[in-house]
Amino acid sequence: MAILVVGSVAYDSVKTTAGGPHVSLGGAATYFSIAASYFAPVSMVAVVGDDFRPEDQRLLEDHQVDTSGLTRVKGSTFRWVAEYGDDLSEAHTLDTHLNVFADFQPNLSPKERNLPYLFLANIDPDLQHQVVQQMEKRPKLVAGDTMNFWIEGKPDALARVINSMDALLINESEVRQLAGESNLIKAARHILKQGPSMVIVKRGEYGVIGFTNTDIFAAPAYPLESVVDPTGAGDSFAGGFMGYLAASDDLTIEGLRCAMIVGSVMASFTVESFGLDRLSSLSAREIQNRYREIWKLTHFGGPDDAEIPMRDLDTVEPTRGETIDN
Amino acid sequence: MAILVVGSVAYDSVKTTAGGPHVSLGGAATYFSIAASYFAPVSMVAVVGDDFRPEDQRLLEDHQVDTSGLTRVKGSTFRWVAEYGDDLSEAHTLDTHLNVFADFQPNLSPKERNLPYLFLANIDPDLQHQVVQQMEKRPKLVAGDTMNFWIEGKPDALARVINSMDALLINESEVRQLAGESNLIKAARHILKQGPSMVIVKRGEYGVIGFTNTDIFAAPAYPLESVVDPTGAGDSFAGGFMGYLAASDDLTIEGLRCAMIVGSVMASFTVESFGLDRLSSLSAREIQNRYREIWKLTHFGGPDDAEIPMRDLDTVEPTRGETIDN
Repeated sequence: MAILVVGSVAYDSVKTTAGGPHVSLGGAATYFSIAASYFAPVSMVAVVGDDFRPEDQRLLEDHQVDTSGLTRVKGSTFRWVAEYGDDLSEAHTLDTHLNVFADFQPNLSPKERNLPYLFLANIDPDLQHQVVQQMEKRPKLVAGDTMNFWIEGKPDALARVINSMDALLINESEVRQLAGESNLIKAARHILKQGPSMVIVKRGEYGVIGFTNTDIFAAPAYPLESVVDPTGAGDSFAGGFMGYLAASDDLTIEGLRCAMIVGSVMASFTVESFGLDRLSSLSAREIQNRYREIWKLTHFGGPDDAEIPMRDLDTVEPTRGETIDN
Repeated sequence: MAILVVGSVAYDSVKTTAGGPHVSLGGAATYFSIAASYFAPVSMVAVVGDDFRPEDQRLLEDHQVDTSGLTRVKGSTFRWVAEYGDDLSEAHTLDTHLNVFADFQPNLSPKERNLPYLFLANIDPDLQHQVVQQMEKRPKLVAGDTMNFWIEGKPDALARVINSMDALLINESEVRQLAGESNLIKAARHILKQGPSMVIVKRGEYGVIGFTNTDIFAAPAYPLESVVDPTGAGDSFAGGFMGYLAASDDLTIEGLRCAMIVGSVMASFTVESFGLDRLSSLSAREIQNRYREIWKLTHFGGPDDAEIPMRDLDTVEPTRGETIDN
């Protein structure tokens, strides 16, 4: 099944402790599309300026991303300048030039209006809502991302579009902010009452934890000896997540769990280089291997194996308000 | 098999967002002993003052902890006063009265000198070293903890005792500090060259990640809707970890992985109440159930199942220095 993504395409200038400033193609829709392209066909709706480079267009085409919805207008492409310190979980934005992105108005083609999987990358929630409204029929899955800027600036518009999502993919600090609740389970439960049936919380180097009304699933990030540039990790996660779901068309709990692992796999590749260098040049074998490595990283003897060997502490006196066996 | 733990017994006064100040029995050796007692016999070497309450003595005995090495001396028991804010990962120490603990000199009995599992809780590394020296034969497993205070204040003594450990259990920020390396894998590898064959990194609400020379294992913390008081979580983890290893006597990679999960189970109970209230009143069924819940929380379709469905992107041109299949 095919995926529609609506979001930003940008030129990023990023400096990290590994080097830079490194200028490269970026933007949420770009990372998402390349990551998802390994699994399912992707159509991208976004806007770029007349400075958009032919090699960047070709990169998307090489990944069979349908760029017929990538509008080219007079002016410069969105530019983002940022720096990371030792704490790779936090980007310090030095400069943002929205340029042509300031007037972005997503306008879906008939084909795009009928795609079964929709990802609303982190843009103005009013635009996200417009996209949902344009869909001819309800997609099988609507997922989206957002950020503190919209949580603070457009809470009502955000609540409206979140209400139409099946899955909210969001950073840990932002889910707390959105729910007004510091406990993560309570925050996720709060969001699960607002529309989405899944809340997928991205925790950076600590991985991801996903909540539905009946399930919680936690996966660590793939541990890396060298993190070059965290930019795009969250969008690559979303691309792997949606890519797996669209490819398998498996929306069961088990499917969602695998999708979260595939998302983690794709995010782990992204951070290994500046920009899209690593993410855009993966082999199927590398992806399958890393999936297996995360499996090996997390598995242990389960409930089908023997029980944990325990002592008989029956002599503990039940006099402290204890429940000895409940 | 039985375990020897050497460390502190204290009276803690703790205030968290859930309430308090709540005064209760605490100390690393106490949390460790109670947690481990569900799995294996524990002997505790520690010191208390003449204010040590009979009900606290009884609590240890109820858990069949051998307290013949718990020395009672004239004076007051170690007291720790702390407060946690919204960020439960950081205790703000308001006051520390070492009291009788200031002159603590562990002196092992013949029985204690022959115990096969040894845990050196977080105390002065010179004292930790004295304990190792007193062991009649090399234990099957020597594990230990430490903290920033000793990393900064006694680096040479710390290096000496770490060299004699099989397993170092340590907080994430402290392993980075100890290794002088911000990347976690590199930090763990650095420690693995200093003596220990296992480095178990405690990451608070993000769980635990364990390193050996051939294996990495990551486990999330059990997600809780209500964390009352994080005090003792790390020592309860160590107690569950060592308790499982001593009970199973399984030092294989698979055994270590299960031990880390049992550690996480015990830590998760500890933080559900102030002090030892929850940890000391568990049933076997509660422990087995939570182990199962962590299993359910982390498992997904693995490499024995079908491969991830992927697209054929063979038309990607191998012109960007990409390896299409390596």
